[in-house]
Amino acid sequence: MAVIAPSRRVRRTPFSDGVAAAGVKGYTVYNHMLLPTVFRSVEEDYRHLKEAVQVWDVAVERQVEVRGPDAGRLMQMLTPRDLRGMLPGQCYYVPMVDETGGMLNDPVAVKLAEDRYWISIADSDLLMWVKGIAYGFRLDVLVDEPDVSPLAIQGPKADDLMARVFGDAVRDLRFFRFGWFDFDGTQLVIARSGYSKQGGFEIYVEGGHLGMPLWNALFEAGKDLDVYAGCPNLIERIEGGLLSYGNDMTRSNTPHECGLGRFCSTQTAIGCVGRDALLRVSQEGPVRQIRAISITGDLPTCDRAWPLMAGKTKVGQVTSCARSPDFGTNVAIGMVRMTHWDAGTALKVETQDGTFDAEVHEEFWI
Amino acid sequence: MAVIAPSRRVRRTPFSDGVAAAGVKGYTVYNHMLLPTVFRSVEEDYRHLKEAVQVWDVAVERQVEVRGPDAGRLMQMLTPRDLRGMLPGQCYYVPMVDETGGMLNDPVAVKLAEDRYWISIADSDLLMWVKGIAYGFRLDVLVDEPDVSPLAIQGPKADDLMARVFGDAVRDLRFFRFGWFDFDGTQLVIARSGYSKQGGFEIYVEGGHLGMPLWNALFEAGKDLDVYAGCPNLIERIEGGLLSYGNDMTRSNTPHECGLGRFCSTQTAIGCVGRDALLRVSQEGPVRQIRAISITGDLPTCDRAWPLMAGKTKVGQVTSCARSPDFGTNVAIGMVRMTHWDAGTALKVETQDGTFDAEVHEEFWI
Repeated sequence: MAVIAPSRRVRRTPFSDGVAAAGVKGYTVYNHMLLPTVFRSVEEDYRHLKEAVQVWDVAVERQVEVRGPDAGRLMQMLTPRDLRGMLPGQCYYVPMVDETGGMLNDPVAVKLAEDRYWISIADSDLLMWVKGIAYGFRLDVLVDEPDVSPLAIQGPKADDLMARVFGDAVRDLRFFRFGWFDFDGTQLVIARSGYSKQGGFEIYVEGGHLGMPLWNALFEAGKDLDVYAGCPNLIERIEGGLLSYGNDMTRSNTPHECGLGRFCSTQTAIGCVGRDALLRVSQEGPVRQIRAISITGDLPTCDRAWPLMAGKTKVGQVTSCARSPDFGTNVAIGMVRMTHWDAGTALKVETQDGTFDAEVHEEFWI
Repeated sequence: MAVIAPSRRVRRTPFSDGVAAAGVKGYTVYNHMLLPTVFRSVEEDYRHLKEAVQVWDVAVERQVEVRGPDAGRLMQMLTPRDLRGMLPGQCYYVPMVDETGGMLNDPVAVKLAEDRYWISIADSDLLMWVKGIAYGFRLDVLVDEPDVSPLAIQGPKADDLMARVFGDAVRDLRFFRFGWFDFDGTQLVIARSGYSKQGGFEIYVEGGHLGMPLWNALFEAGKDLDVYAGCPNLIERIEGGLLSYGNDMTRSNTPHECGLGRFCSTQTAIGCVGRDALLRVSQEGPVRQIRAISITGDLPTCDRAWPLMAGKTKVGQVTSCARSPDFGTNVAIGMVRMTHWDAGTALKVETQDGTFDAEVHEEFWI
């Protein structure tokens, strides 16, 4: 296994010292920044995430700040989700598409004020697209990457840990709502959200200097809660059907292919640059779509798209896969053509180490 | 040292099998793709690069293809370099800037035809900016990432190796010119260019299926030339003053700060979206600029920006650094304020492992 080469270009985060001290064993790079992928082992991290509480350095979820009189107009240009009902204090999961309806990112938008948003991005330089559109349409808006680094608290004991550091009011946060909470004299945005199905929060740490003090405060407060460093867990996110931009979807895919049609209201999302391109697919549905797939056998690492075959015909591909201890099978995310996407369909998956049996499922596991 | 976690999102290249077989020891991620950083050791790779010939998987230099009636207009919008004199068959190093004059990328543009360009990019999703501008200005142009993966042949024996595979005509290529050469019945663009000072070529491999056949043909042909797998070498590129986007320059910097003023003709680059913002600095010069810096002592890895201090005042930063066997010192690239950028200025550099003596140099080493 090759090591990851350090350089300034692959940016450290405000929490990197804590991550290293916790014994991180693997990294990936995400938005030109280090993202931990494993601490003890992927299986141990998985079990611990489901039973205790973890602190995740997800500073890689960089923010694109959109601010100014045209902020709302610009936001609606970026997504086929109708944003008219969005209020300050809300988070929206917003598929972002280009003029062809292709996915550019699948961020969470945070509405700070009527004229101010953060877009908490997946792995692509969405800032460049937003700046290009803002410039091309001469919008009165500022677009920039602020010094904001999310820290996620995930797991069944997340509420208990957070209450000890931020007070009991944090327990009252509803899903995908945020509030302002004090840490060391600074008001921080905290949302009930996160990239797991175990529940928890994301703290938008505004100001890198607060990173390690907050990290340390959480670990100090959570000693008897078995708090530990964690990171988005490959097994758990696949069990939960949490998609990963760049893995399970790319610019080639529409939101509808990604199963994100429920977040789109293309008819009424007036101003969205991809609206014309998406109107038809939003009414008729896509010809291929994301599906839960189980695969039997001793599989290699899924480091590339694996073709899904029905006989000699390619009918889709698997893009994320992991062995699930809880479900006793390989859980996977794939995209399958309409002709073969019904639950129970038996397919073959071609990996770099041979062909294995696969089956399409109705739903993800958790 | 942590390992790099494999996933589809961090894309493999058409040459990845060859890279693995050659014993790659380290990777970085660049444009969402694997880039090797070391094979034998950085020092051994360095010596071999200066004495023999290497084959580099630089597929990470993804192409942004710009094609259509407005291609030329769009290209000029992206850069303060005057492109009016650029002819098909030429490569231009083109700083690309946003509307504030900040660097978005420092690619090589390849003019394939009057209405068709490839932009061979450094590490940022420039595609998003180009698409945003094209859409915002309603340009009649196609913008996409084609299946083109550069393979670089670098080192003093590069001409000999290339002539064996592509014929002697390849020797006649002038610097930053390209021609079309046959491989296995396919015409490939080959330019005399590359990210080293040792001379060589870049083959724009159009069609991933050609990757390993070409890789193998080069190794077969070069056995007695001591051909080996290589990659951009940290030591050699710093000795040569080859900047790295994301390391030595970011969106915060103008081309003039990066010492790239000689590639800008801001006055006549009419249409460049950053022209207004750059006119003043192009006439008066920047207040800080890239400099060669030598540092004495046993340094840690440069994985973050190191402040350059004059007494208690920060006057710049070092962003790339390596121990040079040939020059017997630590060679570095930094950006220094005008007040302290004269050759011979003695400064201190603050690393994660303490403070060291630094000196500003007139020129890079090679």
